[in-house]
Amino acid sequence: MKPLDIEPLTEGSVTQQASGRLVVETSGQGFTDLTEAASRWVFSTGILHGLLTVFCRHTSASLLIQENADPDVRADLLTALDRLAPREVGYLHTTEGPDDMPAHIRAMMTATSLSIPVLEGQMALGSWQGLYLVEHRDRPHNREVVFYLIGA
Amino acid sequence: MKPLDIEPLTEGSVTQQASGRLVVETSGQGFTDLTEAASRWVFSTGILHGLLTVFCRHTSASLLIQENADPDVRADLLTALDRLAPREVGYLHTTEGPDDMPAHIRAMMTATSLSIPVLEGQMALGSWQGLYLVEHRDRPHNREVVFYLIGA
Amino acid sequence: MKPLDIEPLTEGSVTQQASGRLVVETSGQGFTDLTEAASRWVFSTGILHGLLTVFCRHTSASLLIQENADPDVRADLLTALDRLAPREVGYLHTTEGPDDMPAHIRAMMTATSLSIPVLEGQMALGSWQGLYLVEHRDRPHNREVVFYLIGA
Repeated sequence: MKPLDIEPLTEGSVTQQASGRLVVETSGQGFTDLTEAASRWVFSTGILHGLLTVFCRHTSASLLIQENADPDVRADLLTALDRLAPREVGYLHTTEGPDDMPAHIRAMMTATSLSIPVLEGQMALGSWQGLYLVEHRDRPHNREVVFYLIGA
Repeated sequence: MKPLDIEPLTEGSVTQQASGRLVVETSGQGFTDLTEAASRWVFSTGILHGLLTVFCRHTSASLLIQENADPDVRADLLTALDRLAPREVGYLHTTEGPDDMPAHIRAMMTATSLSIPVLEGQMALGSWQGLYLVEHRDRPHNREVVFYLIGA
Repeated sequence: MKPLDIEPLTEGSVTQQASGRLVVETSGQGFTDLTEAASRWVFSTGILHGLLTVFCRHTSASLLIQENADPDVRADLLTALDRLAPREVGYLHTTEGPDDMPAHIRAMMTATSLSIPVLEGQMALGSWQGLYLVEHRDRPHNREVVFYLIGA
């Protein structure tokens, strides 16, 4: 087997950092697409090459990069999370309602932070990748996401 | 629907990086709170704005950002990990004991690295978020965590 | 209990960033070891201290840092992923074949991005840690991974 070789893409200096904040009003369990908002903000900073980090300030909502084409994929992912973290197994922590502890487990299995390289002013997402906030609670919540970009 | 707009928070130059190392003596399966240690170290570097990355150098222990209020949440998370990666299903890898392979699976489902923006000298954690090392093995272990901060 | 204290390792300026791209030809469900390729590329950039971020541009393949010693661990991890995201539960999204939706779920439970501190020119991986691309589809695919390094 021939060795795997990483092909150099870009190199340069590092001069700049920026941060931003997004409040998302969710409408209960489900996905909110943050891709366009992130893309516009990256462009607005003037940073062409660097690293974008997205951070979710909650423990019952989380982040995912997943398929942006067929919405059935997102529906199936929610069903899978329901199956992996069911309501009816009996939890110690019940004071915030029957959907709260499953929401923490679903957040544990997904991402609180994600980092995406930025090349030529654009996030290096694949063609089928979207950036999503995932609400795991039943009821609508205001969720805060912090964006951090470093580069030049 | 109105478009989601990221509100600019900070911007500035990038001048500095720092790294540190923490050895945690765990006492078997469970959570160790690293929030305060991380917070003190971030302060000690003098970096006010930037990005903190936390990295766990093990494959049977891992990292999580989870609720810091009700300890029952952490207990329920451990029970959920037990259920998701049970001992009694039969594994090929058994030489290191019956708790080792479930520990690798639990590490796989949680985080080996986490990145947290730092704003005004503080990690941008939400009010209910704590940073934890999670030991997945039964017996006490010494676990090494690397901290890396970049910014200005 | 004595407080946890992070021991300072390195500090310095930040001057440089670099990115690279790797195409991995997978041969169906399984692990491809990227550790050596990443290590050689980090060395080639001349950056001695910094942060490496690895990003997978797909939603049915993903990244993991896992045990590099006993190959049975990786076999057991694949079995665990099969059990956690089974084929036969009935999905809405079936147009790309019966292995596609389970592959998205397995990618959701693992990592799309990973960040590893670099110290003295080397990734700060633990002795038993390897960096892997995990193919979740049955058939061979070309998978693209982006590497990003920042530091000095």
